[in-house]
Amino acid sequence: MKLIVIGAEGAIGTAACAELAPRNEIIRVGRSSGDIHADIADRASIDAMYRETGRVDGVIVTAGAVHFGPLIEFTQEQFMLGLSNKVMGQVNVVLAGIDHVNDGGSFTLTSGVLDRDPIRSGTGAATANGALGGFVVGAAIELPRGLRINAVSPGLLEVSATRYEGFFPGHETVPSERVGRAYAKSAEGAITGQVIIVE
Amino acid sequence: MKLIVIGAEGAIGTAACAELAPRNEIIRVGRSSGDIHADIADRASIDAMYRETGRVDGVIVTAGAVHFGPLIEFTQEQFMLGLSNKVMGQVNVVLAGIDHVNDGGSFTLTSGVLDRDPIRSGTGAATANGALGGFVVGAAIELPRGLRINAVSPGLLEVSATRYEGFFPGHETVPSERVGRAYAKSAEGAITGQVIIVE
Repeated sequence: MKLIVIGAEGAIGTAACAELAPRNEIIRVGRSSGDIHADIADRASIDAMYRETGRVDGVIVTAGAVHFGPLIEFTQEQFMLGLSNKVMGQVNVVLAGIDHVNDGGSFTLTSGVLDRDPIRSGTGAATANGALGGFVVGAAIELPRGLRINAVSPGLLEVSATRYEGFFPGHETVPSERVGRAYAKSAEGAITGQVIIVE
Repeated sequence: MKLIVIGAEGAIGTAACAELAPRNEIIRVGRSSGDIHADIADRASIDAMYRETGRVDGVIVTAGAVHFGPLIEFTQEQFMLGLSNKVMGQVNVVLAGIDHVNDGGSFTLTSGVLDRDPIRSGTGAATANGALGGFVVGAAIELPRGLRINAVSPGLLEVSATRYEGFFPGHETVPSERVGRAYAKSAEGAITGQVIIVE
């Protein structure tokens, strides 16, 4: 299959590519790295990406920014970052991509653990994750031509544990291999409308 | 208790008020009706509302706009309506209200059935509902002074069934009394971080 992975250089994108690359043609996309540059915050940039890739069999998005900070200090602008970037960005990849994905192909979005296992300063992320979970449930029943959509919701990756030291007290970490397989389950499997939890 | 109900004239707000009014002082808020006028889309309007109410023991929000339409026709602007109005509006009621709610008081938001039981044209609502569910999970562990937060997620109300004829095929409807009790469970009970499903 021909698969786009947006955010391919990140920890989660790397895990998805490692699992999928041996069996598929991967087009790696990043804001400043990869085969094609695109920014999910910019709809025109997403459209340009699809013009460059041509038709594909699946799209994986592991990108999306949210603000982390104590709830009582959150401003509206900080809160909207998660909604306009992580949520609207991933949604725009779907809305813009419907005509570029072959029949039966898939969209795989990325949410995260914080809407079921919250941490301090994580409310913006928890909200964005919940939104993406709701989106895939709603969108799955309306996508045309057998197109499918799921979200992968990984716990804290082992490889990211040092970077987030202290923010996730007591959270079990997950190996990248398990995270990668969740993307394979969505892209190469047949499920739709699911939030695939990896923990 | 002294409770603010935003959206008090709507079907859900009316259900909440009917349950709570016999035991509590209710301040009814609406964009163009009620004791105080406020628009949750406007942070300054929310701040003005709290200045007028003074300190309260709980805040209930049953307001929030989303766009309904087929997924493949959704524009970014239509999609953002749910995120900026229903989600950010309800979140702003919380962020603005923390200093105006007495110790142990509560915020009760309103999501809905569509992120667990989707319908055609409901993706914007499903996304907003999921976001609010994630928000209450995240916010509950960070609110100070024993403040609590929950979301009520009602199915289609019996009283609204005619208005939405044809959009919710086969959905069981819920009586307003059951919806009202969910708001009492949040505002008068002790739970926090919950999505209270009424179906």
